[in-house]
Amino acid sequence: MAREPGVWLSSPARVRELSRAWRARGERIAFVPTMGYLHDGHLSLVERAARSAKRVVVSVFVNPLQFEARADLASYPRDLAGDRRLLGQARVDAVFAPSAAAFYRPANVTRVAVTGIGERLEGAYRPGHFTGVATVVTKLLHVVEPDQLWLGQKDAQQVALLTRMVEDLDLAVDVRVGPTVREADGLAMSSRNARLTVRERAQAPLLFAALQAGRASLLARGAGPLARRVLAAERAMRAVIARAPLARLDYARLVDAKTFDAPGPGTRAGLLVVAARFPSARLIDNLKVSLGPAR
Amino acid sequence: MAREPGVWLSSPARVRELSRAWRARGERIAFVPTMGYLHDGHLSLVERAARSAKRVVVSVFVNPLQFEARADLASYPRDLAGDRRLLGQARVDAVFAPSAAAFYRPANVTRVAVTGIGERLEGAYRPGHFTGVATVVTKLLHVVEPDQLWLGQKDAQQVALLTRMVEDLDLAVDVRVGPTVREADGLAMSSRNARLTVRERAQAPLLFAALQAGRASLLARGAGPLARRVLAAERAMRAVIARAPLARLDYARLVDAKTFDAPGPGTRAGLLVVAARFPSARLIDNLKVSLGPAR
Repeated sequence: MAREPGVWLSSPARVRELSRAWRARGERIAFVPTMGYLHDGHLSLVERAARSAKRVVVSVFVNPLQFEARADLASYPRDLAGDRRLLGQARVDAVFAPSAAAFYRPANVTRVAVTGIGERLEGAYRPGHFTGVATVVTKLLHVVEPDQLWLGQKDAQQVALLTRMVEDLDLAVDVRVGPTVREADGLAMSSRNARLTVRERAQAPLLFAALQAGRASLLARGAGPLARRVLAAERAMRAVIARAPLARLDYARLVDAKTFDAPGPGTRAGLLVVAARFPSARLIDNLKVSLGPAR
Repeated sequence: MAREPGVWLSSPARVRELSRAWRARGERIAFVPTMGYLHDGHLSLVERAARSAKRVVVSVFVNPLQFEARADLASYPRDLAGDRRLLGQARVDAVFAPSAAAFYRPANVTRVAVTGIGERLEGAYRPGHFTGVATVVTKLLHVVEPDQLWLGQKDAQQVALLTRMVEDLDLAVDVRVGPTVREADGLAMSSRNARLTVRERAQAPLLFAALQAGRASLLARGAGPLARRVLAAERAMRAVIARAPLARLDYARLVDAKTFDAPGPGTRAGLLVVAARFPSARLIDNLKVSLGPAR
């Protein structure tokens, strides 16, 4: 099933018009929001989206609202020509790429905030970040009006937060999650990886190694009390990150995959999460874990 | 054009299903959100909605999120049987009346906030009120997916706030406004009027009288500097409210109708707004004014 190369649009009204025409024909629409500088992680999401829906819309928009630091926004990697080439080869029907000035008019003052989960971990380390994410995704969903919203597991807290938001706000969209795509040495693909120096890049796989050590610790102590197993897994993760002299650890935690709180009696799935700052980029990664037979 | 009496639904999924079926047939959908205890103001909105769209959906939902005080929520007047009777005689296709427990599940933590305008006047006197309003209207729009959102001018700041929100969040809906419906003595119709004692009710028309005095003051000083005319109009309004011994004034202001800031060089339309607390109910009212030849 070949598709025409996707049409690039900057007008919300044009995108909605296309989407409504497809819906009127009974065609299912999948939406993949991105900030561009696309890598195999994004393309894997696009492929999954294309397999599960007749129409695929991708957005390419570096959302100023989700960057707490202007420097981080300014240095976020951009390569629109590369994105055009990659999406031209992918099964994409439309690309929505608005300008920041047009998408956020000066008078705009409305924000979508997810309390609780939005304030923990990434929310605490990046104040305002998740409000920026929730606001832009709400806007994008209103423009694209898709049946499915495709997100990458790499940003696990974003997935949990947007899943919560979609349910809380009665948004008529299914949240679908694609697995993290990794380099051969385990480093999770991320547009930010492009900023790493050679020495930082050499140490970056220790994030994934830390997650694996956390999982191994959990498995080894499968019979102990949960609180103690959690502490041991977090200690094991920290020990691995300590082997990366260029990395400063923000957190290495085992959390409830849905709420991002500490695991408790109501926890169904656990998640190991890690965040570390290298001088050139801050990286995050995560790994789902079973909390095992002790529960 | 007779309509069947509207079907009452509590399930968001059922309402959306109906709405999408209408949209698929190319029928325009108007939506009138209410908190029930319907009066002629609501019915006038419903009539206008029915004249401008083939389908009319009304919601009846006392939104707990927009009441800062539990006592105010508990004492908000309710009369579902009366609402059913009135809507049964009106040109309404569907009534969405969810239960609070089903519409806000316990895990719900997402809020829509409109900063700036949402923090002034009513926002300052009723902390959290407008976040509750913005959140519930976002949810209702996601359920009903209407072409038009019908609001009453009586709640002018709510109109300005939701107009801002719809634009900021790219919601695909036209905001339409119906004029304030008044009793013979000028009192703006409001569900809260039902709470007034006989003595309070006798003094309540002074809110509208105050607005008229403010307008008269503006007209009388049509040639003076704007700031001085604003102060005089506000003074004139306060003087009228002072004649109501049971009323405690919250504010009597002349504001920019769009931003609810003090009128400035960018102001296109002015609005006189007044809020006063009687022992049994807090009342608000407003009147559009031209800022006249001096500008």
